[in-house]
Amino acid sequence: MKMILDLDTGIDDAFALAYAIAHPDIELIGVTGTYGNVTIEQGMANTRALLKLLGQPDIPVYAGVEIEGFVVSEASARIHGTNGVGEVNIATDNAESAGEAVDFLIESAAKYGEDLVVVPTGAQTTTAKALEKDEALRGIRMVTMGGALTVPGNVSPAAEANISQDPVSSNSVYQLAEDMTMVGLDVTMQTQLTRAEADSWRGTAAGDAFADMAGYYIDAYQENNPHMDGCALHDPLAVAVAVDPDLVDCLILPLQVDTEGPTVGRTIGRWDGSEVETRVAVGVDVDAFVPDFIDKLGQLFARLAQ
Amino acid sequence: MKMILDLDTGIDDAFALAYAIAHPDIELIGVTGTYGNVTIEQGMANTRALLKLLGQPDIPVYAGVEIEGFVVSEASARIHGTNGVGEVNIATDNAESAGEAVDFLIESAAKYGEDLVVVPTGAQTTTAKALEKDEALRGIRMVTMGGALTVPGNVSPAAEANISQDPVSSNSVYQLAEDMTMVGLDVTMQTQLTRAEADSWRGTAAGDAFADMAGYYIDAYQENNPHMDGCALHDPLAVAVAVDPDLVDCLILPLQVDTEGPTVGRTIGRWDGSEVETRVAVGVDVDAFVPDFIDKLGQLFARLAQ
Repeated sequence: MKMILDLDTGIDDAFALAYAIAHPDIELIGVTGTYGNVTIEQGMANTRALLKLLGQPDIPVYAGVEIEGFVVSEASARIHGTNGVGEVNIATDNAESAGEAVDFLIESAAKYGEDLVVVPTGAQTTTAKALEKDEALRGIRMVTMGGALTVPGNVSPAAEANISQDPVSSNSVYQLAEDMTMVGLDVTMQTQLTRAEADSWRGTAAGDAFADMAGYYIDAYQENNPHMDGCALHDPLAVAVAVDPDLVDCLILPLQVDTEGPTVGRTIGRWDGSEVETRVAVGVDVDAFVPDFIDKLGQLFARLAQ
Repeated sequence: MKMILDLDTGIDDAFALAYAIAHPDIELIGVTGTYGNVTIEQGMANTRALLKLLGQPDIPVYAGVEIEGFVVSEASARIHGTNGVGEVNIATDNAESAGEAVDFLIESAAKYGEDLVVVPTGAQTTTAKALEKDEALRGIRMVTMGGALTVPGNVSPAAEANISQDPVSSNSVYQLAEDMTMVGLDVTMQTQLTRAEADSWRGTAAGDAFADMAGYYIDAYQENNPHMDGCALHDPLAVAVAVDPDLVDCLILPLQVDTEGPTVGRTIGRWDGSEVETRVAVGVDVDAFVPDFIDKLGQLFARLAQ
């Protein structure tokens, strides 16, 4: 399948990028840059540097749309590092954008149709703009990392980080996208990468960089989630579900995003006559996903060193 | 099975009471009085009057525990009427309480064990006190009407009415009860009684009274939920699930209640090491439940007139 990742790169975005490159069933045709963990500019620079590190310098990176007034939160800088990749020194690349993300999404929908899947893992401003502009894109399969239906948010009691950045756009995304699976905290917080598992990647340039990023991320997780023994695999789980929908059990309901009030940024079902339904993942086959993720990244890093 | 209903009687509580009496598989051994739609005093008077109307004047009614400072909300008075039963004139009965609800719950748990099911459909203060006091009660099967996991609340964006009355007690209930099914707005708002269906009960004293109550309730629903064509069957659905657990599809998760903050009164999953899991109903077989409810009440009203 052809895949477009919409990343705010970000440590778990880096994991998602590596997993998509490592996976034999995925052809990553481009990355669009969004914001959240970092600015769009920083995220795109990180993406390009990681693509080089992962042996795919020719995959194009497109500039998305940042909401006015965005600043990286203190929490994001603490969890992902001020450079977004855990202060790990990857040679950043400030090359020009390959073009506008909105255009790329729309052109790809027209070109690939049902062979395409779009995986937004950050703020959904760009995705919303493209869906609002183009009807054909609304029929394309999408898997978003974001939201929390049956568990609390992670930036407020109700809001998950990606949705919190631009609830109005996210509400638009879930209302417009007709083939949508939401992979939110309900399931991603059940997946976990331990320090020992990440350290198994060491021994190559890419493996060391990814193990260092994981170590930084796990440190932050252990501060915020002392009952966990590692870090959650948010964005890579969305990639995995895009390849294998059976990894998750879903509720199907008309999903909306609260755009104001005490629960602003919350993803919630509203049976008020809306006809567009979202598959919301509420259960995950952890044992099928986590070892596969660790193995595929390990194999990729080993191949790159040959 | 032996059943104890914990009611804040209330129009849909009256429906639940009639359904329990009408159902051949249920032996209603007593009703405990809680608050929410009405005060405990008003609710117990309503329950006794309804038990007489339904030909069961000997079922005992026990006094529960009201939280300090409780007053009936304007919304409750509008939805259920100032007397709790839609201003319908049922001969109220101010007889003395049969005893303390907490004691009755604990004694019944000891006496009936796994033959007993407890169905709390109002504020959960009494249930919490009994569970806190008695370990044996924690193993008894319970089905609560209350809460909202995948849909918004009905008294705030996050809180359902029953839980909102005493979130601390409800949190205690879901932490302590070991065999708990939550029947919340996720499913009860999918069930619906229309005016025509309620009018099919008319022609007897009890049938007329219940059709009048339903009419009052449906008027309130059409104001608050213009997309609905009737009223929701909150409390009777909990009774139905107590008899037939297969009526609902459930998520199983460690349920907690937010006791403070912007989402106070919210029911939500928290995978933080808690070992007690709650079955939360998220899907319901409407076609199996609603016609059965309408038929059983109709048959009961007809039998009573003979």
